[in-house]
Amino acid sequence: MNNNGHGSVLWFTGLSGAGKTTTAKFLEEKLRKQGRRVELLDGDELRDTICKGLGFSREERFENIKRVTYLARLLSRNGVDVLVSAITPYTEMREHARAQLPGYVEIYVKCPLHVCEMRDVKGLYAKARSGAITQFTGISDSYDEPSNPDITLCTSTATLEQNGDTILAWLGHAAPLEKSTSRRD
Amino acid sequence: MNNNGHGSVLWFTGLSGAGKTTTAKFLEEKLRKQGRRVELLDGDELRDTICKGLGFSREERFENIKRVTYLARLLSRNGVDVLVSAITPYTEMREHARAQLPGYVEIYVKCPLHVCEMRDVKGLYAKARSGAITQFTGISDSYDEPSNPDITLCTSTATLEQNGDTILAWLGHAAPLEKSTSRRD
Repeated sequence: MNNNGHGSVLWFTGLSGAGKTTTAKFLEEKLRKQGRRVELLDGDELRDTICKGLGFSREERFENIKRVTYLARLLSRNGVDVLVSAITPYTEMREHARAQLPGYVEIYVKCPLHVCEMRDVKGLYAKARSGAITQFTGISDSYDEPSNPDITLCTSTATLEQNGDTILAWLGHAAPLEKSTSRRD
Repeated sequence: MNNNGHGSVLWFTGLSGAGKTTTAKFLEEKLRKQGRRVELLDGDELRDTICKGLGFSREERFENIKRVTYLARLLSRNGVDVLVSAITPYTEMREHARAQLPGYVEIYVKCPLHVCEMRDVKGLYAKARSGAITQFTGISDSYDEPSNPDITLCTSTATLEQNGDTILAWLGHAAPLEKSTSRRD
């Protein structure tokens, strides 16, 4: 916890298939082992719950992120560390989240488009290329590269463990006064 | 907290104008003074955030309650006491909430329809009677009276303070083992 009892909100942004959820899950486990209260909010999963029915137009994508932000805010102000895994493609969305969340940490999960497309874990890039799905980030919709993220991770060149360590080191560095208390215990 | 670190979920159900939010706000303040982490989820307010765009058909009302339940679950499993103020008119909705929430406490805020209608704080009953709004609980949509609530409050005959005491007494009685620890401190 930091920010007057608020939890951190580690916001993972990046292309589909860049490794946001994989990295967030890895970190979630690490933080739980430290005895912290943690929740992982996955953009894909939230589209089945509080974001059900929203499409992928610019407006609906923004509404989607507003709801995720609302949820992250409720949790983090109660001392929960929140990990958000969501493409969050537009700069204004990330500005919204930063403005709303005292513990916001922007983590850019960077991976070249051709690598994401080669991985294509969910088969979505193939569908986007064939036109079976539209408004797909990186193919038929834009991704504004973060201009000033708090942390940048490269998943095509660094390992999961290395990236996890980068975040943990950043968190430790960002809150040196708490090293002897909850943050590092 | 109770239920293995889960917070309680005090779910206020009843007609529009029965006094759900008034009672919940009163209790919220009391619980905060006890040093507990508390969130009040108001059904009306959530229709501007995570439930935006949902209407009042049976299906949409249920979807609305599912989202509120989802949010209450995330908070309560992190030790937050959650107060929910929402009409929650159908039995199956309350069964859903009870099944999903380990700390669920059903509080029936009981008030005769004619009293709610006389109060008509938001002017909604007048609109419902004139037909300006449809599917309005108690007028043009049903309210299944709770058959076995944990607590029943009568807002037309008891004062706010009395009702607040009833809930606090119930909470104290329901968790006698915690009387000397967090619950009563």
